Amino acid sequence: MNAPPPPTAIALPNRHLLGIEGMSAAEILALLDLAEEAVEVSRQIEKKKTVLRGRTQINLFFEASTRTQSSFELAGKRLGADVMNMAVANSAVKKGETLIDTAMTLNAMRPDILVVRHHAAGAVELLAQKVSCSVINAGDGVHEHPTQALLDALTIRRHKGAIDQLTVAICGDIAHSRVARSNILLLNALGARVRVVGPSTLLPTGIERLGVDVFTDMRSGLADADIVMMLRLQRERMEGSFVPSVREYFHFFGLDEAKLAWAKPDALVMHPGPMNRGVEIDSAVADGRRSLIGEQVEMGVAVRMAVLEALAAHLPNA
Amino acid sequence: MNAPPPPTAIALPNRHLLGIEGMSAAEILALLDLAEEAVEVSRQIEKKKTVLRGRTQINLFFEASTRTQSSFELAGKRLGADVMNMAVANSAVKKGETLIDTAMTLNAMRPDILVVRHHAAGAVELLAQKVSCSVINAGDGVHEHPTQALLDALTIRRHKGAIDQLTVAICGDIAHSRVARSNILLLNALGARVRVVGPSTLLPTGIERLGVDVFTDMRSGLADADIVMMLRLQRERMEGSFVPSVREYFHFFGLDEAKLAWAKPDALVMHPGPMNRGVEIDSAVADGRRSLIGEQVEMGVAVRMAVLEALAAHLPNA
Amino acid sequence: MNAPPPPTAIALPNRHLLGIEGMSAAEILALLDLAEEAVEVSRQIEKKKTVLRGRTQINLFFEASTRTQSSFELAGKRLGADVMNMAVANSAVKKGETLIDTAMTLNAMRPDILVVRHHAAGAVELLAQKVSCSVINAGDGVHEHPTQALLDALTIRRHKGAIDQLTVAICGDIAHSRVARSNILLLNALGARVRVVGPSTLLPTGIERLGVDVFTDMRSGLADADIVMMLRLQRERMEGSFVPSVREYFHFFGLDEAKLAWAKPDALVMHPGPMNRGVEIDSAVADGRRSLIGEQVEMGVAVRMAVLEALAAHLPNA
Repeated sequence: MNAPPPPTAIALPNRHLLGIEGMSAAEILALLDLAEEAVEVSRQIEKKKTVLRGRTQINLFFEASTRTQSSFELAGKRLGADVMNMAVANSAVKKGETLIDTAMTLNAMRPDILVVRHHAAGAVELLAQKVSCSVINAGDGVHEHPTQALLDALTIRRHKGAIDQLTVAICGDIAHSRVARSNILLLNALGARVRVVGPSTLLPTGIERLGVDVFTDMRSGLADADIVMMLRLQRERMEGSFVPSVREYFHFFGLDEAKLAWAKPDALVMHPGPMNRGVEIDSAVADGRRSLIGEQVEMGVAVRMAVLEALAAHLPNA
Repeated sequence: MNAPPPPTAIALPNRHLLGIEGMSAAEILALLDLAEEAVEVSRQIEKKKTVLRGRTQINLFFEASTRTQSSFELAGKRLGADVMNMAVANSAVKKGETLIDTAMTLNAMRPDILVVRHHAAGAVELLAQKVSCSVINAGDGVHEHPTQALLDALTIRRHKGAIDQLTVAICGDIAHSRVARSNILLLNALGARVRVVGPSTLLPTGIERLGVDVFTDMRSGLADADIVMMLRLQRERMEGSFVPSVREYFHFFGLDEAKLAWAKPDALVMHPGPMNRGVEIDSAVADGRRSLIGEQVEMGVAVRMAVLEALAAHLPNA
Repeated sequence: MNAPPPPTAIALPNRHLLGIEGMSAAEILALLDLAEEAVEVSRQIEKKKTVLRGRTQINLFFEASTRTQSSFELAGKRLGADVMNMAVANSAVKKGETLIDTAMTLNAMRPDILVVRHHAAGAVELLAQKVSCSVINAGDGVHEHPTQALLDALTIRRHKGAIDQLTVAICGDIAHSRVARSNILLLNALGARVRVVGPSTLLPTGIERLGVDVFTDMRSGLADADIVMMLRLQRERMEGSFVPSVREYFHFFGLDEAKLAWAKPDALVMHPGPMNRGVEIDSAVADGRRSLIGEQVEMGVAVRMAVLEALAAHLPNA
């Protein structure tokens, strides 16, 4: 009806954001720059841009997630999109509809962007191959969670200036973590030194091939770290396999002030949330002055605004 | 505050859309024409009209339904309305509030339009008598689902040019289907020849009185059909009564390429979704070049936009 | 981005609305005046103001509530805000996140207003101390429900002109009712004579200290009452304690025409909903010409619009 919005200065190489894998450092950094502008938008009185005005964004969540879905919903609304949430767990899946049929049904409603979370690795990519709109992976099984890695990088960059030369220790339940995987890929792409630290039972075999150093004790894993990134212990994903006792896990791998002292004096602490306080992280650290946990959430909205805006250049008819 | 939107050229005879029953061919065709315009709106970059700007639309669903609720939500948003979803199953009903009290409560919030789905036939009409706003029936028990029939007609017309002279075979679980009932009423009003095809246990007694030919085998029921409309086997509504075995049902009544060959060479296939693949329809047919199933979903948004726009002429204060 | 909206003529003394306790009569009356304007907005064709354009309102409900959440959602949308609903029961709480972590997470997304309902008295105030945005108490345990008391006062004032000099009888399950508590505080602040009427088992000890007269029988409690305000029998909150039989309760304390005759001839009837018909109120009274129950719901949207607008003067950056 009206003229299309002016193209953004930066565009992603294709119309989907399915993972960090395959993204170049330049693309990542351009997204972070765009996100910095979005931070300012969310701090204004009128938190509003018009780049997605009249566009339809559907949040299709096969797994419940308060914070990720909310973050995408606010990001879309602040860009002017019409946002619709679909909690699929409660509806069509019960009637036996397949993933692809659900996706094709939504696609026929002419959305511009589908934001998808699914419990199976690869499900989001499969879905993206079938639809004509843009797809953003909001987490697929243990595979990737690219906007989490982008928001973590943005948070780090705002405090440390640059990401290359930094030593980042990702600690805890690496095996069940798409957050770890996307962060490793992104931090490596930007030239950081990445370590994973955790009990051997929670380290996937072959993790070294992603280009990380592997530690099974916190003292050596945290030595000289600039960033200590704690992961949520995903006990809900450990059906049938080894589930550590909480007390023992906290003793050896929970981040408290004593263990944090092993890192650099100016090391900063991160956690993707939701936290298990007293399990993987002590409250004194989570709420302490070196914690970036709240800021990560704020950067989450900004990064998602940036991704939505960057994908706009690929939207149908744009 | 501002001037009211200009009246639409077409208006429904009253302020509710409760069923196809009682609608004239002229009214139906005028809605389909308006829906054609809405198709174009949804294919634009800015999928946006302002005819419902500042209006309040409430989707009141006593039964969960991914696709119908989403379709109405997008339709309302694309017309500029403020849309609010109420999944009543999860709230007031638990506290023992009656249907009418829930309706009166919402009515007091001054909505312009209530879109209602309820598991009991007649519940939506009862509710419409109590409220001062417009009511759209989004499915009431086994009674009617008028927007489904309208979207099916729109889809057919776009492919076959006109609906009179066509032979339409509606196949499967007729007894539990409000979709069948609304489609029979609408297709008859437009002059089509309508057949129902299914096992005798799934054909309601007296269905002939609606003006259809009744067949209990697919070969004769599909002979010379222009449109083969498959219905979902509603096993969830068959408590205590006869539930056919899936394998046997598919053998006799599931639409596969072999059975489709009994219809006209250019016959087209429809299904209201969600599909039970391998039960009432084979995947090769559902995904084949003669399937209109995806287009039905797109037309669903357009038809609901048209109904909302047509009712706007009856809205309070308009 | 744009200029901030002009300040409203009236402003609350601080940035939260946590309860009626501590509010002055002047502040209450100013809110009611502002709500009168909002009534008119909701009766227009375009139910729309722009005072919250670009603002973010999050409805954070730890307890499900159809009518209160809907009312706040419509109020926010009619003022132009981006409104996001969070039904926390279904998400983060399941993962073991604390109330404060949930609040801090949302706060980091830079909302302007959090509307919070929680099952524990004091939880909303605790949360308000931790966040940087405005917080509105939408009901916390048996403590307060300030917007309910405001909407009740608005409804009374529209029918009786002024609230001082009136005799208001609040009847039924006082012990489990935050509605009773907030109404007592507000009506006293405006100079009404307030009575509570109920079985001794449902009257909290020390209730007299709030400045009410206490009655344990309806005949004497309703004598000379201008307003009879019935409360919902909160059987769902009576775990383990005395639960009255419904038949006996209705016989002694259910409001029917016979009991209503004990009040003034022009006495009016109110109920916060959802009603238990045949338990605390008879249908003939609930639906009768002296019932204000539907109007209370309409005033609910208006009062919430007024509160949101008044708090806008305190919003971050405003």
